[in-house]
Amino acid sequence: MYKIDKVKKIVIEKPLKLDCGRTIQDFPLAYETYGTLNEKKDNAILVFHALTGDQYASGTNPVTNKEGWWSYALGPGKSIDTNKFFVICANVIGGCMGSYGPSHLDSAGKPFGTNFPVITINDMVNAQYNLLDFFKIDKLFSVIGGSMGGMQVLQFISNFPNKSYSAIPIACTASHSAQNIALNELGRQSIMADYNWENGFYAENKKVPDKGLAVARMAAHITYLSKKGLQEKFGRKLQERDDLKFGFDADFQIESYLRYQGSVFVDRFDANSYLYITRAMDYFDLTKQFNGNLSKAFQNTTSKFFVISFTSDWLYPTPENRDIVIALNAIGKDVGFVEINSDKGHDSFLLNVPDFLNAVRNFLETSYKKIK
Amino acid sequence: MYKIDKVKKIVIEKPLKLDCGRTIQDFPLAYETYGTLNEKKDNAILVFHALTGDQYASGTNPVTNKEGWWSYALGPGKSIDTNKFFVICANVIGGCMGSYGPSHLDSAGKPFGTNFPVITINDMVNAQYNLLDFFKIDKLFSVIGGSMGGMQVLQFISNFPNKSYSAIPIACTASHSAQNIALNELGRQSIMADYNWENGFYAENKKVPDKGLAVARMAAHITYLSKKGLQEKFGRKLQERDDLKFGFDADFQIESYLRYQGSVFVDRFDANSYLYITRAMDYFDLTKQFNGNLSKAFQNTTSKFFVISFTSDWLYPTPENRDIVIALNAIGKDVGFVEINSDKGHDSFLLNVPDFLNAVRNFLETSYKKIK
Repeated sequence: MYKIDKVKKIVIEKPLKLDCGRTIQDFPLAYETYGTLNEKKDNAILVFHALTGDQYASGTNPVTNKEGWWSYALGPGKSIDTNKFFVICANVIGGCMGSYGPSHLDSAGKPFGTNFPVITINDMVNAQYNLLDFFKIDKLFSVIGGSMGGMQVLQFISNFPNKSYSAIPIACTASHSAQNIALNELGRQSIMADYNWENGFYAENKKVPDKGLAVARMAAHITYLSKKGLQEKFGRKLQERDDLKFGFDADFQIESYLRYQGSVFVDRFDANSYLYITRAMDYFDLTKQFNGNLSKAFQNTTSKFFVISFTSDWLYPTPENRDIVIALNAIGKDVGFVEINSDKGHDSFLLNVPDFLNAVRNFLETSYKKIK
Repeated sequence: MYKIDKVKKIVIEKPLKLDCGRTIQDFPLAYETYGTLNEKKDNAILVFHALTGDQYASGTNPVTNKEGWWSYALGPGKSIDTNKFFVICANVIGGCMGSYGPSHLDSAGKPFGTNFPVITINDMVNAQYNLLDFFKIDKLFSVIGGSMGGMQVLQFISNFPNKSYSAIPIACTASHSAQNIALNELGRQSIMADYNWENGFYAENKKVPDKGLAVARMAAHITYLSKKGLQEKFGRKLQERDDLKFGFDADFQIESYLRYQGSVFVDRFDANSYLYITRAMDYFDLTKQFNGNLSKAFQNTTSKFFVISFTSDWLYPTPENRDIVIALNAIGKDVGFVEINSDKGHDSFLLNVPDFLNAVRNFLETSYKKIK
């Protein structure tokens, strides 16, 4: 793991009652900002990250020295233009980039491990709400995020209906599907099967369940891409060899690509955080929070919504995104919707997909003009 | 693992040169038969099994005491009617139900482990061809199989173009896709990540990499079902509890279902066999065997083809099955094709899908009348 000592943090003193029943307080929330908050404080955008993201959405991540996860979309002159907007992005609680998570120390000075409370999307959002107080922002201009970030957008608007002028949930769902629970459970079982996981208390024993975590990442990575995208990018291309080697080394490029994805992931991510965050995703069911009527989640909001899905995203396919639109339309809320053509699968929202990037830019620009 | 001493076997004395270059001989091929071979010996059907199948396609598997894997389709009065037809099904080489595989002993009396040669679909088919000699069958009435079984059907016809009157490849492909290679690699990496795998030599050390194998099975199982099928069957139903438990036990039925699938699988399947058989699938590229022209694989055959795919099968989707039809049409071969409506995903060919079962029955009956 990388050192995360120098990460920017606020410490949230106010007690936060979690959905599991436990109350936490005086816990750290690591964050980063991009751009400048204007005097009227009306140009702030809160960006929510996905499962393996962090607060370093743009520029160079100072911990990993790699590009921020949303560098295509976010930065000076980009779709989320930090020359105009003040962007805040925080590491979710349960995460491993400085925010309160299972690798933190308990009162006895030992890493929590699996004694850390199981958290929910609701808990994540409630923790991040403190950022508005911290920056003395009365109302955000927008909340935006893809995948689990999109779920946080939906939960944020539901919890704080008048705290953002607009909301952009991307490639997400209001209710985690059976297939997605299954895929997350696969990742968890892979981690828990690792000899070094030690029921979650590996950190105090100076061990790392890196093999299990790598397999979990490989599994997830396959789901982020589309069948067609994989076929076009990799097909049956061989890995630096003329022919099959009749062994179990990586013969195909797709194999070495996946192995690489697994191996670099374990350097930057904590296995227990993977368990906790996937659990939060699986528990997410905004529709059930409102007894089966998703519209009620948005009943009190005045936010202008823009819902975005991608044609080749089979993890959070268009119909699940459209359900959000339907729920908003049913109560006459202001909602735009676009399904972007892309072969890049669920990962489309992280990649250079011009139609997507333009859609986000145009929506933000047009909406911002309206409030000026 | 179960005891497999009492399994029916032939020992193939004739040397078989494998694609990897090694030659094997005097090796066992475990098989089972159903029904009676008629006097003219024109009623024989060779059934090829899929990745985790075996020779016990119908009736009770005497080793596991469970129903044979194709009990819906195969048996007295069923689609593949054993009152009419004589059905042979053999365990593939590389397998673990009696045929020559990595759990067999080498000349020094130790289990081969990963010293077993990497085998291919071509090798599997060439080994099974010996069954025709053994039963003194000049020409089969049909070759049939789903998934990897379908690949064997294609390879069989390509290798032995006039040894079967008909051929029924189901839910398969002529060239394993990047996504499917990726999914198989995920399973292999999961097994290899198991502390007990010991580079494949676990058997001689009396260990079993059961956790890794269970995770591999879970991963595969998700891919055998459709998103819609999973949602309808499991959705977000909870497992014997009123509400979420805020822990990592199985809260959702889909989680306990997957864990169960993983746990029962390790009792009947060998981890190294899983590695070898998935490798054979990944290596399968009949199109490449004929320098990119799949039609040439079938140029010399007189077999009547019937290709079957399923609407919700995302592992071997209809377009990949249709490519086989296109290749056959391009050279004027006799081929029928049907895409069956089913929400049951890739597993449809193993389940009670009446349209599928009727299609197989009708094709076999009509075709058999023609040769009488």
